[in-house]
Amino acid sequence: MSKNIVKPSILSGFMELIPSEQILFNQMLDTIRENYERFGFLPIDTPVIEKAEVLLAKGGGETEKQIYRFEKGNTELALRFDLTVPLARYVAQHFSELTFPFRRYHIGKVYRGERSQKGRFREFYQCDIDIIGNETLDIINDAEIPSIIYSTFKDLGFNSFTIKINNRKVLKGFFKWLGIEDSTEVLRTIDKLDKIGLDKVKLELEEQNLDKGTIDKIVEFIQIKGSNEEKLHSLKSLGIENGIFKEGLEELTSVNHYVKAFGVPENNYSIDLTIARGLDYYTGTVYETFLDDYPDIGSICSGGRYDDLAGFYTRQKLPGVGISIGLTRLFYQLNEAELIKAKDNSLIKVIIIPMEDCLDEAIETASVLRNKGINTQIYLEKGKMGKKFGFADKLDISYSIIIGPDEIKKSKYALRNMKTGEQNLLSMEELLTSLK
Amino acid sequence: MSKNIVKPSILSGFMELIPSEQILFNQMLDTIRENYERFGFLPIDTPVIEKAEVLLAKGGGETEKQIYRFEKGNTELALRFDLTVPLARYVAQHFSELTFPFRRYHIGKVYRGERSQKGRFREFYQCDIDIIGNETLDIINDAEIPSIIYSTFKDLGFNSFTIKINNRKVLKGFFKWLGIEDSTEVLRTIDKLDKIGLDKVKLELEEQNLDKGTIDKIVEFIQIKGSNEEKLHSLKSLGIENGIFKEGLEELTSVNHYVKAFGVPENNYSIDLTIARGLDYYTGTVYETFLDDYPDIGSICSGGRYDDLAGFYTRQKLPGVGISIGLTRLFYQLNEAELIKAKDNSLIKVIIIPMEDCLDEAIETASVLRNKGINTQIYLEKGKMGKKFGFADKLDISYSIIIGPDEIKKSKYALRNMKTGEQNLLSMEELLTSLK
Repeated sequence: MSKNIVKPSILSGFMELIPSEQILFNQMLDTIRENYERFGFLPIDTPVIEKAEVLLAKGGGETEKQIYRFEKGNTELALRFDLTVPLARYVAQHFSELTFPFRRYHIGKVYRGERSQKGRFREFYQCDIDIIGNETLDIINDAEIPSIIYSTFKDLGFNSFTIKINNRKVLKGFFKWLGIEDSTEVLRTIDKLDKIGLDKVKLELEEQNLDKGTIDKIVEFIQIKGSNEEKLHSLKSLGIENGIFKEGLEELTSVNHYVKAFGVPENNYSIDLTIARGLDYYTGTVYETFLDDYPDIGSICSGGRYDDLAGFYTRQKLPGVGISIGLTRLFYQLNEAELIKAKDNSLIKVIIIPMEDCLDEAIETASVLRNKGINTQIYLEKGKMGKKFGFADKLDISYSIIIGPDEIKKSKYALRNMKTGEQNLLSMEELLTSLK
Repeated sequence: MSKNIVKPSILSGFMELIPSEQILFNQMLDTIRENYERFGFLPIDTPVIEKAEVLLAKGGGETEKQIYRFEKGNTELALRFDLTVPLARYVAQHFSELTFPFRRYHIGKVYRGERSQKGRFREFYQCDIDIIGNETLDIINDAEIPSIIYSTFKDLGFNSFTIKINNRKVLKGFFKWLGIEDSTEVLRTIDKLDKIGLDKVKLELEEQNLDKGTIDKIVEFIQIKGSNEEKLHSLKSLGIENGIFKEGLEELTSVNHYVKAFGVPENNYSIDLTIARGLDYYTGTVYETFLDDYPDIGSICSGGRYDDLAGFYTRQKLPGVGISIGLTRLFYQLNEAELIKAKDNSLIKVIIIPMEDCLDEAIETASVLRNKGINTQIYLEKGKMGKKFGFADKLDISYSIIIGPDEIKKSKYALRNMKTGEQNLLSMEELLTSLK
């Protein structure tokens, strides 16, 4: 029968891994999930497809153009493009069934049909946590978030990273004091300080028709240096008296105090007055996280505090604070930089290789190991021993057990360490001890 | 600011759970994954969106109508409707990077826009395993599959279930012997024996213009009774000499022998000659699994052997055997029948409740517990103690620790069992022992 063959391929901008990579990806995902659960977050899962009118309630902006939309029957549908909008809808919809403050984590795929380019994905995993209050949410929550980021990235195997913290109210109050009503453009400029340098920042500010005195004050502000305490002190000595600035400074001071109490080392977090984040969403504390040795990767974990999560779906006031890890992009970049460390390259602990006519005993042995929770494969195909060992090698399996007539006669198991080549003849009890 | 409120709701046919249910769902998913890994299966993950021409290479059939399709730019896209077609494409595409026999598991969401009805979902999780051979795959693999089903459902907390096994070659050979060339209709009828009963099966067979002698032989065949050995013996004594029947019978005999070796109790599996499964895909062994006390739920885990996985994408011959658990539907039905048992209703082991001005000590205590891997929440909001305990109760948290000035003075921790109300004043060491 001759058939037409369709070339097997996937769309550009989608990540697909071979199993040895997928194991690493899943280990990272599991580590993130474990950390989120360790800090008391509960899981939710929402549909990938929702009504377009619900997902796009906010409307407008760059995001809308990137959304996958389509019709089915007479309904306009859309694929979720983040996990925050579904969270807002979820909390509004299930409000009476939830307990507040509501700590939820959500790990899932989201979709953005943006222009395809290296390191950008149209389907990617987000790993989000948010703490949602009913009417109010204590500022201490903002100080716990960095300890979750710290714990997570430590467990992912990183040491040199910095969680940068700022407060949007401090920025807003500062610009109000300068008489700048719409600070959108200025914020966008100072956010680029690390990328474009101070001279270009000054130039851009001049192009925004700011006078020299104002620009000097902005430059002085974004160059505030020293320890976190010193930075807070410098902010205080600016003598800005408006309410929003004072509120922001008080929050930042409180967060700084408790971040320490939560055990984040001074090395791993820093107040950074140039961090602004998304311009219309966050209202207080904001976070970005950078790998010290790989600043080009950009922020690997970001988020912040918002006044009102679900204003498009409910009149209930729901303030919150949260962060997101874009795991697909992070994995891609770490992989490119050869920074990914495996706990184990294979999920299979041991492979049982039966010699001819020893299959029943091999199966029996596998059952014992599996009942003890040891990931075990049996090589079930016929063939030469060399081919069987080759299989174990290719899959990076740590141990093999050969079952032949000799071993069966002696009730012993020939355990071979596939990395070192060391081989020992063991009793079942010794075998279990070795493999645990 | 007055805004329009969009009613928060999801599409019909989509499942969304509150966190206490989601925890149970995730526990089931984790149990399935652990079992798949314990039997040596490796993870893969494929895009939810693929090129329509690739996903629909096979074309035709009921499925095609149910597929979510749309255009983006000039490309026809579709959402995956199962995990088997993506597996076929994956194996063909990554052939040279994979090691055969290739054991993969895949747990993910699939999409079918079928007519919405109770217990049917348009987005649902499938949990699949398959073993794919390069050119050949030993029949012993078919015998290992039931042991994976057995282990998985035992671990999910079930005892009374039956894995029903049949072989399509036995059916094909039997119908060939009867002179029935196209057995599609007959198979569809006998597949319904459990649902419609023997009399209606006979009636339907008469409507298919089969003569009485033939119908009698079919009825005799599907009523073959006894132990698995007795059934095999009865099949043998039919004296059918065609190659396909003999091959099927040999396979079924071999599978029956090794299923026992793999440790599946006789109570939990049974040869059932009425099991046929999807008509154009499976070519050898087929499986269905039923809860003995809830036959109405239908098969909770099904699958089988196929000659050629990826004929639409490669000329490489890739035989395989696999099964699938439709977890969303299964969860829904178990939940409806109140059959779901929780290991733990909450993921949070302990909540720390600080009295006024004891926040620093509460945070410190939480850090110690979290570093020991204990899922810990701190109640961070201000308020009365009653409200704080109420929060712990609502979330079903097992333990609370009260931190007040007295406890701090004595360096002790007041651990309260939230179920029994028992309270003890413990040192940190005793606390850790109690919570482990």
